[in-house]
Amino acid sequence: MQNSRVLVVVGSKSDHQVISGTIEILKKFKIPHQMEICSAHRNPEKTKALARSAENKGTRVIIAAAGMAAHLPGVIASHTTLPVIGVPLNASSLSGLDSLFSMVQMPSGVPVATMSIGEAGAKNAAILAIQILAISDQKLKKRLKKFKEELGRK
Amino acid sequence: MQNSRVLVVVGSKSDHQVISGTIEILKKFKIPHQMEICSAHRNPEKTKALARSAENKGTRVIIAAAGMAAHLPGVIASHTTLPVIGVPLNASSLSGLDSLFSMVQMPSGVPVATMSIGEAGAKNAAILAIQILAISDQKLKKRLKKFKEELGRK
Amino acid sequence: MQNSRVLVVVGSKSDHQVISGTIEILKKFKIPHQMEICSAHRNPEKTKALARSAENKGTRVIIAAAGMAAHLPGVIASHTTLPVIGVPLNASSLSGLDSLFSMVQMPSGVPVATMSIGEAGAKNAAILAIQILAISDQKLKKRLKKFKEELGRK
Amino acid sequence: MQNSRVLVVVGSKSDHQVISGTIEILKKFKIPHQMEICSAHRNPEKTKALARSAENKGTRVIIAAAGMAAHLPGVIASHTTLPVIGVPLNASSLSGLDSLFSMVQMPSGVPVATMSIGEAGAKNAAILAIQILAISDQKLKKRLKKFKEELGRK
Amino acid sequence: MQNSRVLVVVGSKSDHQVISGTIEILKKFKIPHQMEICSAHRNPEKTKALARSAENKGTRVIIAAAGMAAHLPGVIASHTTLPVIGVPLNASSLSGLDSLFSMVQMPSGVPVATMSIGEAGAKNAAILAIQILAISDQKLKKRLKKFKEELGRK
Amino acid sequence: MQNSRVLVVVGSKSDHQVISGTIEILKKFKIPHQMEICSAHRNPEKTKALARSAENKGTRVIIAAAGMAAHLPGVIASHTTLPVIGVPLNASSLSGLDSLFSMVQMPSGVPVATMSIGEAGAKNAAILAIQILAISDQKLKKRLKKFKEELGRK
Amino acid sequence: MQNSRVLVVVGSKSDHQVISGTIEILKKFKIPHQMEICSAHRNPEKTKALARSAENKGTRVIIAAAGMAAHLPGVIASHTTLPVIGVPLNASSLSGLDSLFSMVQMPSGVPVATMSIGEAGAKNAAILAIQILAISDQKLKKRLKKFKEELGRK
Amino acid sequence: MQNSRVLVVVGSKSDHQVISGTIEILKKFKIPHQMEICSAHRNPEKTKALARSAENKGTRVIIAAAGMAAHLPGVIASHTTLPVIGVPLNASSLSGLDSLFSMVQMPSGVPVATMSIGEAGAKNAAILAIQILAISDQKLKKRLKKFKEELGRK
Repeated sequence: MQNSRVLVVVGSKSDHQVISGTIEILKKFKIPHQMEICSAHRNPEKTKALARSAENKGTRVIIAAAGMAAHLPGVIASHTTLPVIGVPLNASSLSGLDSLFSMVQMPSGVPVATMSIGEAGAKNAAILAIQILAISDQKLKKRLKKFKEELGRK
Repeated sequence: MQNSRVLVVVGSKSDHQVISGTIEILKKFKIPHQMEICSAHRNPEKTKALARSAENKGTRVIIAAAGMAAHLPGVIASHTTLPVIGVPLNASSLSGLDSLFSMVQMPSGVPVATMSIGEAGAKNAAILAIQILAISDQKLKKRLKKFKEELGRK
Repeated sequence: MQNSRVLVVVGSKSDHQVISGTIEILKKFKIPHQMEICSAHRNPEKTKALARSAENKGTRVIIAAAGMAAHLPGVIASHTTLPVIGVPLNASSLSGLDSLFSMVQMPSGVPVATMSIGEAGAKNAAILAIQILAISDQKLKKRLKKFKEELGRK
Repeated sequence: MQNSRVLVVVGSKSDHQVISGTIEILKKFKIPHQMEICSAHRNPEKTKALARSAENKGTRVIIAAAGMAAHLPGVIASHTTLPVIGVPLNASSLSGLDSLFSMVQMPSGVPVATMSIGEAGAKNAAILAIQILAISDQKLKKRLKKFKEELGRK
Repeated sequence: MQNSRVLVVVGSKSDHQVISGTIEILKKFKIPHQMEICSAHRNPEKTKALARSAENKGTRVIIAAAGMAAHLPGVIASHTTLPVIGVPLNASSLSGLDSLFSMVQMPSGVPVATMSIGEAGAKNAAILAIQILAISDQKLKKRLKKFKEELGRK
Repeated sequence: MQNSRVLVVVGSKSDHQVISGTIEILKKFKIPHQMEICSAHRNPEKTKALARSAENKGTRVIIAAAGMAAHLPGVIASHTTLPVIGVPLNASSLSGLDSLFSMVQMPSGVPVATMSIGEAGAKNAAILAIQILAISDQKLKKRLKKFKEELGRK
Repeated sequence: MQNSRVLVVVGSKSDHQVISGTIEILKKFKIPHQMEICSAHRNPEKTKALARSAENKGTRVIIAAAGMAAHLPGVIASHTTLPVIGVPLNASSLSGLDSLFSMVQMPSGVPVATMSIGEAGAKNAAILAIQILAISDQKLKKRLKKFKEELGRK
Repeated sequence: MQNSRVLVVVGSKSDHQVISGTIEILKKFKIPHQMEICSAHRNPEKTKALARSAENKGTRVIIAAAGMAAHLPGVIASHTTLPVIGVPLNASSLSGLDSLFSMVQMPSGVPVATMSIGEAGAKNAAILAIQILAISDQKLKKRLKKFKEELGRK
């Protein structure tokens, strides 16, 4: 997809379903986006290439979802100055706590904006990305405010 | 401070010291910012007023730090469409795990961009805020890239 | 329901089933009560209005049940001096521990009377509410004592 | 103390210091109260006697604080229909999590209104007790509302 | 059952199935035993009576199984000098960790010999009880040694 | 010590201090006992020899204390049919939770009677050992009952 | 199997299925291996014999998988200087955390190379064993590098 | 150091002290080694270069120690087929649990041989590295066996 504003990366094919909420909301808001499957551990070069090339392709925010020792968003964040949003997934017997700790506890210097574990986090990642884009996009801001009002009415 | 770009809110005076890393980095990058002490539970009206008035005052990102059942960033996020960054603090015997869970596990619809617990998170909150502002500020982007290069050399 | 003594609030429709034990016990004891669905994050104004108007409507105790980063009882407690009982729900992969910590670890000044996670907690919330009302209601006290004796015989 | 409205029980002498916040607030509000040191495990008969005799002595709310496998509030609650407030203490290497789980996870039928671990919980126990007493005491209600307003101003 | 050597108490009917491994092993070793269902919280007087009368009825070891805030073995231990074995059950969303902490973290003076959570613990409780009885029963000792050898061969 | 009734084994010299409460209580009750320092991992042969020879030397109960991945009581239990009491120690950053899980979660067939973590557990191990010995020792039983009465008076 | 390079031991028959990923990868790489079922607790002598005889039979790496208080790899490691790889299994209500802590928290002197919990760990144990063997086996090294490249392409 | 057999990498200068036990043991066994300070997040290129060049420089085993969201060993493992040993450090309020989960829970395909948290793990990492090297080095094997015997005598 040309000129995607949001890059969504998931660590493995099996994570695809959980992240569908992210894509749905990005589509609802008509945000150009790109979806990639890439493991930080099995394919570090592709991970790096995705992270390094994103800004020049027009990407403004990166969302990365992964389970277990979920290094994906941290590794991406080490290669870019774009904001990176992490979605921890429940992909082991540890209920996603392993993934949460691997994302949220980033050391000083390289932040990952961590969301809640699983589907709620996947949706919130898209909303946060839109909140970030809306800072410099008044039309998007309006749609976001309308969305927030609708949330309250539901 | 007039026209502050980043609003920093802490839940109590005792959290002031932990958040000093946030302020230091915002100053280093010359980001106009405002600092407030406000408890979501003891002063819900002031919390709401801060959240609701922020955008009109020019604020683009809100950082909120709190300990224990740390509702502050979530309550702020319920009142604004600006991106809200949460810094969980280690302020009880539970090592900040209570605060982490209270921030990161936000339900679908109202994201909080959660950082690591304590001082590392306080610094990363400022960096993430700058990454967000730099999306539409090329000068800031340059300084951010230089900062990242220096990180690597240290 | 007119002149309700107990206000029961749940964070979302999906929590409705878990809280049925609360309603059942309130009905058994013939306590006038009111049930509301209201998210602290998606609808902060309704949450505040419910909390602020409760006392004048005759409410004496508020029960609030929620999952994940369960701010609902804490936010309600920030707006009222009525006793607030919190029921943490198991609504994420973290088994209700996120909800428990978000409720029980309230900072000094704004207590939430926290019950056990899920269905047992939902029933106990009603019993605690009745214990509180029974302090100044001798008839209710008698029924409560009978209920306690029956518990032992079961 | 004659005609005490609130009975405060701690599991051992070493818990005395933590509970001082409870006593301070009860004194501030001029609530007649009684303080006892009694271990549920080492002195089950005294525990039972305290619980059973409380109501006839005029007690309306019981506060119990204990650490480790903290059965004290649960054991008291098994012997009375008065509301029982539990304060989990950090008295082992497990940071009070053992005490929290031993209090909050009460089975259906016998609630314990659990507060946060340690000093914040000790203070909140007194505030909750006063909120409960204030339901049928208009003067106390007024003082409670003033206290809440002052909390917000601090 | 007359002159039972081991008293087995479970906190509720729903725990009956989990404890079947205890009974099976006691039967296999032909240990006279008695089974009771009794909640420490809903029926404190029966709990006390069981604990206090056990020794005079010939009981030498007590096994108590319970879930959630599992006070049963601790409360029994407060009323007897017989060895008390606790079996924590997985009866809430917290995977039996609440029950484990409520049993094992007994304060100084009143021990509970805690087993593993659930079915393995239920079987081990019977084996430990037999190990204790076998100290002064040479025939039982022989059967126990044979049982241990068979374990190894399986 | 000739004909020791209780064998106390600690995993390393550094655990010596924590276990002093065990020795003190055994001395108070005049129970002949033997103290050994032996690591299950660094000295498996000595561990086995201690476990295998204990019964013939007159030992009736074994107490084993260890920290971290605390296999000591489990390894001893694999070599004897005597009751084995485990005391988990807080010897790593994990607050003794590693040691607790390594002891209490023994699989079916080989029980370890697990006490609370650290000093309280060390004392309780001695008391449980005495409770076990007192089953077939009327004089010891009397002293145990007196000890229990004194506990209540303190 | 004659001259096996890798010895795979599982604690019980029920763990057989989880470890199938280990065997599959060893077969894929044509590594001669031996599979044994042996409980450290129920059969300590066989465990010791397996550990002690392994080196002379040509074994270079030992893989041990177990659940609950999973002493198997630690006990094996106490009897050999071969590298021992541990696979914690999710075999209780504690999600494998008990097994993880029992393996990874080995005290100084006797390491266990701990893998992730369950199936991912079972596969990784085989890969690590092959990485170790490949240090002094250039043909194996080549196949390992090819395997790594294929991982990235999948 | 020329032709180093073991590469030791720590994530930051502050981790230097904890890893001193690793260096001490490598020196004691006269293993040529190299020590580097390199953050996976702040300096991903240097991390990659260290991992990719290690084998050609004669390195046979890599040890990596880090705290918080400790990606270092996993990132290194993604770039090499050498065995990678991870030492989780206690560098945040979460007691090293964040670091442990970030290391041990590696997904299928890229193992990290995880040691215990902190100093014990630092020592064990060196011992495991030596066990691995000793597979194809008979002299080292002899010294390792002597070391193990001495461990038992201490």
